[in-house]
Amino acid sequence: MPSVLLARRATQLSPVMPTSSAHDKIAFDSGHAFPGLLPDLTAEADDALSRFRAETLQYAPRPGLPELREWIAGHMAEDGARVTAENVLVTNGAKHALELVCRLTIDEGDSVIVTTPTYFSAIPIIRSYGATFVEVPQDREGMDVDALAQVLDRAAAAGRLPKFIYNVPDFHNPTGVTMPVERRRALVELAVRHRVLLVEDSPYRKVRFEGRSVPSLKSLDPDGTAVIQLGTFSKLLAPGLRVGWAAGAPELLARMAQLKTDAGSCPLTQRVILEFCAAGRLDAHTARVQETYRAHRDRMVRALAQAMPEVSFQVPNGGYYLWLALPAGIDGDELARRAGDAGVIVIAGSKFFALGGNEQRGRFIRVAFSHAGLDDIDEGVRRLAAAAHSLGTGAAAGAAAS
Amino acid sequence: MPSVLLARRATQLSPVMPTSSAHDKIAFDSGHAFPGLLPDLTAEADDALSRFRAETLQYAPRPGLPELREWIAGHMAEDGARVTAENVLVTNGAKHALELVCRLTIDEGDSVIVTTPTYFSAIPIIRSYGATFVEVPQDREGMDVDALAQVLDRAAAAGRLPKFIYNVPDFHNPTGVTMPVERRRALVELAVRHRVLLVEDSPYRKVRFEGRSVPSLKSLDPDGTAVIQLGTFSKLLAPGLRVGWAAGAPELLARMAQLKTDAGSCPLTQRVILEFCAAGRLDAHTARVQETYRAHRDRMVRALAQAMPEVSFQVPNGGYYLWLALPAGIDGDELARRAGDAGVIVIAGSKFFALGGNEQRGRFIRVAFSHAGLDDIDEGVRRLAAAAHSLGTGAAAGAAAS
Repeated sequence: MPSVLLARRATQLSPVMPTSSAHDKIAFDSGHAFPGLLPDLTAEADDALSRFRAETLQYAPRPGLPELREWIAGHMAEDGARVTAENVLVTNGAKHALELVCRLTIDEGDSVIVTTPTYFSAIPIIRSYGATFVEVPQDREGMDVDALAQVLDRAAAAGRLPKFIYNVPDFHNPTGVTMPVERRRALVELAVRHRVLLVEDSPYRKVRFEGRSVPSLKSLDPDGTAVIQLGTFSKLLAPGLRVGWAAGAPELLARMAQLKTDAGSCPLTQRVILEFCAAGRLDAHTARVQETYRAHRDRMVRALAQAMPEVSFQVPNGGYYLWLALPAGIDGDELARRAGDAGVIVIAGSKFFALGGNEQRGRFIRVAFSHAGLDDIDEGVRRLAAAAHSLGTGAAAGAAAS
Repeated sequence: MPSVLLARRATQLSPVMPTSSAHDKIAFDSGHAFPGLLPDLTAEADDALSRFRAETLQYAPRPGLPELREWIAGHMAEDGARVTAENVLVTNGAKHALELVCRLTIDEGDSVIVTTPTYFSAIPIIRSYGATFVEVPQDREGMDVDALAQVLDRAAAAGRLPKFIYNVPDFHNPTGVTMPVERRRALVELAVRHRVLLVEDSPYRKVRFEGRSVPSLKSLDPDGTAVIQLGTFSKLLAPGLRVGWAAGAPELLARMAQLKTDAGSCPLTQRVILEFCAAGRLDAHTARVQETYRAHRDRMVRALAQAMPEVSFQVPNGGYYLWLALPAGIDGDELARRAGDAGVIVIAGSKFFALGGNEQRGRFIRVAFSHAGLDDIDEGVRRLAAAAHSLGTGAAAGAAAS
């Protein structure tokens, strides 16, 4: 590529075109939906492309279809957030919403606060805008707000506050942890006190298997300007629809809308979702999603307990993932490679650490229970255990052979 | 918004949420399709959401659906470009492709070459990445390559070459000019000699009313690394589908793919388009588009000749727009405002100038003949003429009253 001078952000990327996973492997890596849960949207699409053709095949209004923004606002209001359609900007999925937040706030050299570990796809997006990361540890209740308070105090004293705090409070990706309400209150208070924007990424919020929802960070936002919530239909309905949103202060959303290059995002998929939701189909579908993924989680927890008793993990009450702590002597990167060779794809935990130096980086892998069916979950765990055994843990060997 | 520190790029934006045009006004401003041309895609969508459900509702491979990339490559190969699927990256419309080129190449303070005037939506995208503009004049054959050669020589001598040259060679937006092949050859040679990336934005290429296609810049690319062509289905099929592409060197596309935050873009709309094209429906549809917009153009040309003989313009052989040079004493911004009050929406020419100082800025307006029907074209031109008359040109007054 001698003829093109790349931007700094682009030189950090490996110029490899991503490919899909091989078909004969069991995919514990992806955030794909279980195929049996993909809804029948043919009637909605037929309606969208006939009755609503003049809407769905033209450009949408840049903030998104007004009716969909209203529906999303109502959906969030039922969940406790004080929002109207004016607080909702439709995007091409939640990652696009995160990118718009980066474009809104980050100048090269700014910093952003993330948890250790954090959502691995957020890392390159934030980094590509030239931000540096400040990591805050988390425990079984999520981001350590005492540690955060110290970080923010130091940053304030240095006059270099971070541009935003990025967090996944519900069924955290990858750890599965859900923050209790007291912790959430403390987090919002810190953000408000230091006037640092709080970005609540919550794609799995409705994918809850048991227990009651904890108030969202957005619902705890005192004046509506402290928190931007990123939402999506990907994890509940279908990733392929590419419809997400950002919910926040109208003045921020207006600027984010100006930065959108996908015009008003896709009006066809917006209308399909709207017809699905307006017909009241979402509640029944959500129940089915919860029931199915609960069964997937239970199956994977049982399979792991049997085949890999040496790994430890916290059982999440929702979401798509388990975060497996490996026994001493097994490296997550090495296990992910071996597992791939053995026919099951998992993600090395190291990919979820924004900074290089953390000693925990090699100690984990993330496994998704969403995409694979129940029998494949059993078989995938067997393959994973065999891969771990090949790396030398006696316990895994015994379990895998049983 | 006291709690959020904005990035420099975001502070330049007016925090106003864009809205749609009022319904009772005639829209000569938009690049919307004529509603009567929007195709019936219900059968394609039904197929996409039943037979292909496992593909269309999951994440797409990041570069786009392999079959669609192949179809696009074949379509471009028929048009003379030496490309395969490896040279095609599917994006969320052509503007998204332009944004990815910006992310790929621009560091703050870099420069980008554009024509005077240039596509008004490209300006804020390029600017938002911190680039400055270098304007190159154009004449009735497009970008002035002699002026470009001087600009590049000076930039090379200063060691500050621009990151890319942005151009719309077919039915230029807003001027409607199409570059002859000699001019194109000279442009590509200059880009190759100076090793500056050439970005060919060509959304209207197939919307040709008469005459033969001129070879695309991409088809003149000597080794496949000099030109990135941006394409889209928006102007031929439907803007709402939000499917475009970038065609260029695989190493560049691989990095652009890593920078995408919309995953593999929307597989549902990609499959709908693919089924439409694979069924051979595109050729007949293209013929209908050409015939319809030719009639729209002819109607607007005639209406303008009758009602506003004092404006001058070059009749384009394709595209969506006329670029009207106003008589002395009429300012384009003022006329656009008055026209809006009179019930016809046009875009002030000043919006198409990347730099502030150009003396031509106030001399033009852009009118689109795509969206409005034939009778509305007549009525819209009458309103426009009345608005011009109210600004005091006798000629317009006489014509508008006749």
